[in-house]
Amino acid sequence: MKIKPLFDRVVVLPINEQKASHGGLVLPETAMSEQTIGKIVAVGSGTTFDGNSCEMFVKPNDTIVFNKYTCDEVKLDNTTHYVLRQIDIIGVLDD
Amino acid sequence: MKIKPLFDRVVVLPINEQKASHGGLVLPETAMSEQTIGKIVAVGSGTTFDGNSCEMFVKPNDTIVFNKYTCDEVKLDNTTHYVLRQIDIIGVLDD
Amino acid sequence: MKIKPLFDRVVVLPINEQKASHGGLVLPETAMSEQTIGKIVAVGSGTTFDGNSCEMFVKPNDTIVFNKYTCDEVKLDNTTHYVLRQIDIIGVLDD
Amino acid sequence: MKIKPLFDRVVVLPINEQKASHGGLVLPETAMSEQTIGKIVAVGSGTTFDGNSCEMFVKPNDTIVFNKYTCDEVKLDNTTHYVLRQIDIIGVLDD
Amino acid sequence: MKIKPLFDRVVVLPINEQKASHGGLVLPETAMSEQTIGKIVAVGSGTTFDGNSCEMFVKPNDTIVFNKYTCDEVKLDNTTHYVLRQIDIIGVLDD
Amino acid sequence: MKIKPLFDRVVVLPINEQKASHGGLVLPETAMSEQTIGKIVAVGSGTTFDGNSCEMFVKPNDTIVFNKYTCDEVKLDNTTHYVLRQIDIIGVLDD
Amino acid sequence: MKIKPLFDRVVVLPINEQKASHGGLVLPETAMSEQTIGKIVAVGSGTTFDGNSCEMFVKPNDTIVFNKYTCDEVKLDNTTHYVLRQIDIIGVLDD
Repeated sequence: MKIKPLFDRVVVLPINEQKASHGGLVLPETAMSEQTIGKIVAVGSGTTFDGNSCEMFVKPNDTIVFNKYTCDEVKLDNTTHYVLRQIDIIGVLDD
Repeated sequence: MKIKPLFDRVVVLPINEQKASHGGLVLPETAMSEQTIGKIVAVGSGTTFDGNSCEMFVKPNDTIVFNKYTCDEVKLDNTTHYVLRQIDIIGVLDD
Repeated sequence: MKIKPLFDRVVVLPINEQKASHGGLVLPETAMSEQTIGKIVAVGSGTTFDGNSCEMFVKPNDTIVFNKYTCDEVKLDNTTHYVLRQIDIIGVLDD
Repeated sequence: MKIKPLFDRVVVLPINEQKASHGGLVLPETAMSEQTIGKIVAVGSGTTFDGNSCEMFVKPNDTIVFNKYTCDEVKLDNTTHYVLRQIDIIGVLDD
Repeated sequence: MKIKPLFDRVVVLPINEQKASHGGLVLPETAMSEQTIGKIVAVGSGTTFDGNSCEMFVKPNDTIVFNKYTCDEVKLDNTTHYVLRQIDIIGVLDD
Repeated sequence: MKIKPLFDRVVVLPINEQKASHGGLVLPETAMSEQTIGKIVAVGSGTTFDGNSCEMFVKPNDTIVFNKYTCDEVKLDNTTHYVLRQIDIIGVLDD
Repeated sequence: MKIKPLFDRVVVLPINEQKASHGGLVLPETAMSEQTIGKIVAVGSGTTFDGNSCEMFVKPNDTIVFNKYTCDEVKLDNTTHYVLRQIDIIGVLDD
């Protein structure tokens, strides 16, 4: 079961320090001052809240930095998902 | 008796853990951290509050994740209905 | 004496549980969690606060669900009238 | 000496219960729950705060329902005038 | 030395009750409930904060009613000037 | 080293009462009720925060009245600079 | 590993007083009243939050003045990065 976001929202799974899923790199959550990193698993179709279409600059599998407090948190199948608007993404992590 | 929503609002019935109505799946409300899941029973005609037409991305029978606190709650025929704007839907659940 | 609303406002009379005026149906106010139902008695000409024309989706005699706290309350001829904007109508009740 | 309102503002004189000026009708202020009724004595030229022209739906001698707390109060020649924007008029009273 | 206002602002000198400068009329400040009257001494070129041009409905020597608390107060050459936006003028006083 | 402002911002140096730099005039800061006067040393290219171009009504060497509390204060080379948006300038001082 | 900003955001590294990285100049953070200076390391593609394209007035290696409290702070590889919107840059420092 998956969450399909609407508008310009994205769904993100936080990267767990034990998984070391980003190119072998371990990024403990505490190393990111107030922020969280995560991997995008779904993106909306690209529409602003005004109803205008907008470009989605991120795609599934992108690793992003975000702040939990700008997100809706959804626990599904014992996994915490974060849903946030694209404009609240702080940045995309490049290797 | 039914509630017909206006503008970009939708009417949702929360899915009860005893009903297991989503493909046999039981989704206890407590499993969704701060969120609620529900089934859409009616959608507005697709108009923003500014009076512009807008696309409705959801339809009756869609299962959505939403937050009760962004909703108006209406009790009708002993059933609790939630009315919210499409832009406040956190996501649509796919099987 | 009547109240003629301007812009996209509507005037509503709350439906009293003793009157049973909606198709013989008695809808006690306490059955509607935080909401009130009422019958529309007048609608504005259809203009947003920005001065643009807008469609009025409701008409006199429609039964609507609304929240008193989004209304201006006016007592006239010993009758309480509620005046609210169309965008604050939670929904229209269909039989 | 008169107050000429600008933009979409109107100037209103509250109707005093002793004057019975609305078709012989006496409307004590206490009969209007939180609202005041008054007679319009001047209307602005019809411009929104954004600088766009807008239609004025009211004219001098119209009797309106309004809320004092959305008004600027001006005492001139020992008479209290209320100045408010057209969008804050709750409704026009028809005989 | 003078203050030249920008955008849709105007500069106003409050009318002192001792000066009786408005057609011989003495308007003590206390006669105006919460408001102040003053004479406009300068007006901006007519531009909204969004950068669009807008009509200036007032001109130097107009007597206006305004509220000090919507103004910036500037003391220059021992004289108190009030600077406010045209949209905050409550009304123009006509003789 | 200089501060180059962006958008519709300007950089201002407050005029010190000892410098008497405005045509020999001494304007002690305390003579300006809540306001400060200063000389513009740099102006932005003229763009609103929405990205639209806008006219800059002020230029370097203009003397303006402004409020410190609408400014960002920057101390550079032991000199206090104020950076503010053009729309927050209260007025330009003419001789 | 780098942070790629989206929209009109920029990523900034604060200039440390020990590094004297700006043309040999040492700018101790305490010399900047409430502000911080830093060097831009990445800029977004130039899009406002409304989805419109906008000009980016800054580029990598520009030295800017900014306020930490308008930023998201991200600690990566033991280095503190600040991410802010272009409109929150107080100014660009020219030599």
